[in-house]
Amino acid sequence: MISRALCLAAHPSEKLTTEHLELTDIPLAPLLDGEVLVRNTWLSIDPSIRLRLGESAPSGYLPPLRIGDALVGLALGIVVESRHEDFRPGDLVSHMHGYRDFAVVSAAAGGLGGAGTLTRIDAHDWPQQWYLGPLGSSGLTAYVGLFEVMGIRPSDTVWISAAAGAVGSIATQLAVHHGCTVIASAGSRRKADHLVDALGASSSFDYHDGDVGSLLAQAAPDGIDAYFDNVGGSHFIAALDALNPEGRVVMCGAISTYETSNTLPSNLFQITAKSLSVRGFRAGSFGHLYDRVRSTVGSRLANGTLIHEESIYDGLEHASTALVDLLNGRTTGKTLCRL
Amino acid sequence: MISRALCLAAHPSEKLTTEHLELTDIPLAPLLDGEVLVRNTWLSIDPSIRLRLGESAPSGYLPPLRIGDALVGLALGIVVESRHEDFRPGDLVSHMHGYRDFAVVSAAAGGLGGAGTLTRIDAHDWPQQWYLGPLGSSGLTAYVGLFEVMGIRPSDTVWISAAAGAVGSIATQLAVHHGCTVIASAGSRRKADHLVDALGASSSFDYHDGDVGSLLAQAAPDGIDAYFDNVGGSHFIAALDALNPEGRVVMCGAISTYETSNTLPSNLFQITAKSLSVRGFRAGSFGHLYDRVRSTVGSRLANGTLIHEESIYDGLEHASTALVDLLNGRTTGKTLCRL
Repeated sequence: MISRALCLAAHPSEKLTTEHLELTDIPLAPLLDGEVLVRNTWLSIDPSIRLRLGESAPSGYLPPLRIGDALVGLALGIVVESRHEDFRPGDLVSHMHGYRDFAVVSAAAGGLGGAGTLTRIDAHDWPQQWYLGPLGSSGLTAYVGLFEVMGIRPSDTVWISAAAGAVGSIATQLAVHHGCTVIASAGSRRKADHLVDALGASSSFDYHDGDVGSLLAQAAPDGIDAYFDNVGGSHFIAALDALNPEGRVVMCGAISTYETSNTLPSNLFQITAKSLSVRGFRAGSFGHLYDRVRSTVGSRLANGTLIHEESIYDGLEHASTALVDLLNGRTTGKTLCRL
Repeated sequence: MISRALCLAAHPSEKLTTEHLELTDIPLAPLLDGEVLVRNTWLSIDPSIRLRLGESAPSGYLPPLRIGDALVGLALGIVVESRHEDFRPGDLVSHMHGYRDFAVVSAAAGGLGGAGTLTRIDAHDWPQQWYLGPLGSSGLTAYVGLFEVMGIRPSDTVWISAAAGAVGSIATQLAVHHGCTVIASAGSRRKADHLVDALGASSSFDYHDGDVGSLLAQAAPDGIDAYFDNVGGSHFIAALDALNPEGRVVMCGAISTYETSNTLPSNLFQITAKSLSVRGFRAGSFGHLYDRVRSTVGSRLANGTLIHEESIYDGLEHASTALVDLLNGRTTGKTLCRL
């Protein structure tokens, strides 16, 4: 049995291009006890994999891939063959062996901890791929960031960056529904307009339109109470300056820093001066909240009060373009590859 | 009535020298209702005043002083004249009008909020100046940082920087007494030895002996669970790398950054990767805890399980040297000026 997989051909030093990745045939070993063979149907394309493609990864994070390794990421697929009693051929499952057409997956915990474990999905009436997006890790990440880590309050003025992305677009809408004043930012005028017109943000800006700090000050003249960071770098710095006393930052992602080895101006003293709280999190540790997220987000999807957008690339041969486009801000909503 | 005060003569661009400060005679207006005239006896010399001596101060912090302004800081003094019913001549008081011999002080809240308000001190058996140190703002800062902000646990391995300083030396001993494994760092070999030999730290290092990250890794091979930051800059960066998952940082001070406009390598993603929590605080907001701190720290001072050291400069004419020495790491324990 052969699997076709997107593998690392060369470590990018800065910007990732499709040249750094290549499709390769990988032999699959026969199933062992406890394993299932999955035919993947949808791949979740997430920016964080970029952290593992360089020669080194941030310490404390997952280790870097080696040349020739297949990329990993959340995926959905159909069980073709099973040597585990909980899974039968035909079952829809999520797992971490994305970026390939067939995968042998063990039912033991996967790379993302709880959230990456091989899990059977009862898709009900929803489009299957939503279990990678609003009903999957993107929804979990947005929900956990706002409600478990930030401790969002209806009176908050909240800034959400990369707000047109998979996580940001859900976080924006959940915060709006919670009663917050939401400042949303994105990487194009079209996206920025959409955040106000369709997703309900109070104001928005395209961060290309000038200095992020000035744009933020204009959008939030009375400062912000909380910041949901998907971008890092200059966005994080701008947030520290704009936060009101006792303000909170949730560090979810830092896409602006994944492809550069930048330095930051040292305004970290703001954290002391204003008694700020800065907390990082990884949604993988909150897999036990999936049911609650699916119920909360699902009911909003059902009654039309939560909008979900997707950027879909067809065929494994376009997975590398999907990833490069995502890292360069050319996609909107959840970025997916359909096999 | 004339007060002699240490005033700002020129904004330092980087390193503060005694040339930037000068003693000036300031006329004092007659007392208004609610004011008292105080003859200062002890001045607390604290690094944070440096933040207000440049042409601009960090936004969110107190505003910069103007040329000619008297420096401010915590001080003890004796009431000479009173137009407030709660204060009588002869009372010992603490207030924020330091760096001068006489001061007119209003009983309304002072610059530091609760902790800076004009307050009568019942000095009992303790040396008066301890109410600026372990029984005053230094003790409050150490206590609040550990117990209210960090949430210290006996099982923690805690790194405390500037551990030979006013706040650090108390924090080190409180953490040791709490059962923690304490890694303490300071700016000389003599101080580092003292932290282990006299204050009970498990290990220590002089940060001049090499790269802070390497020295820390050597002192704490299994990583650290929490970091009490008095230094900022490269120390903060080293902590992010060394912290274990779910680790906590308390940002109390950042003395290494007060005199430079440095940039930092961007390893802030560690906060996300390891689900870290970073919290800033200012002790001034915790003045309501003074009684608890005085009881906790006082009983340890009384039974000899808490050691207190002081670097004392005599005479207002040496207050500027005291401040410059403090900023350059040449003092140990609480830095004071005795009038």
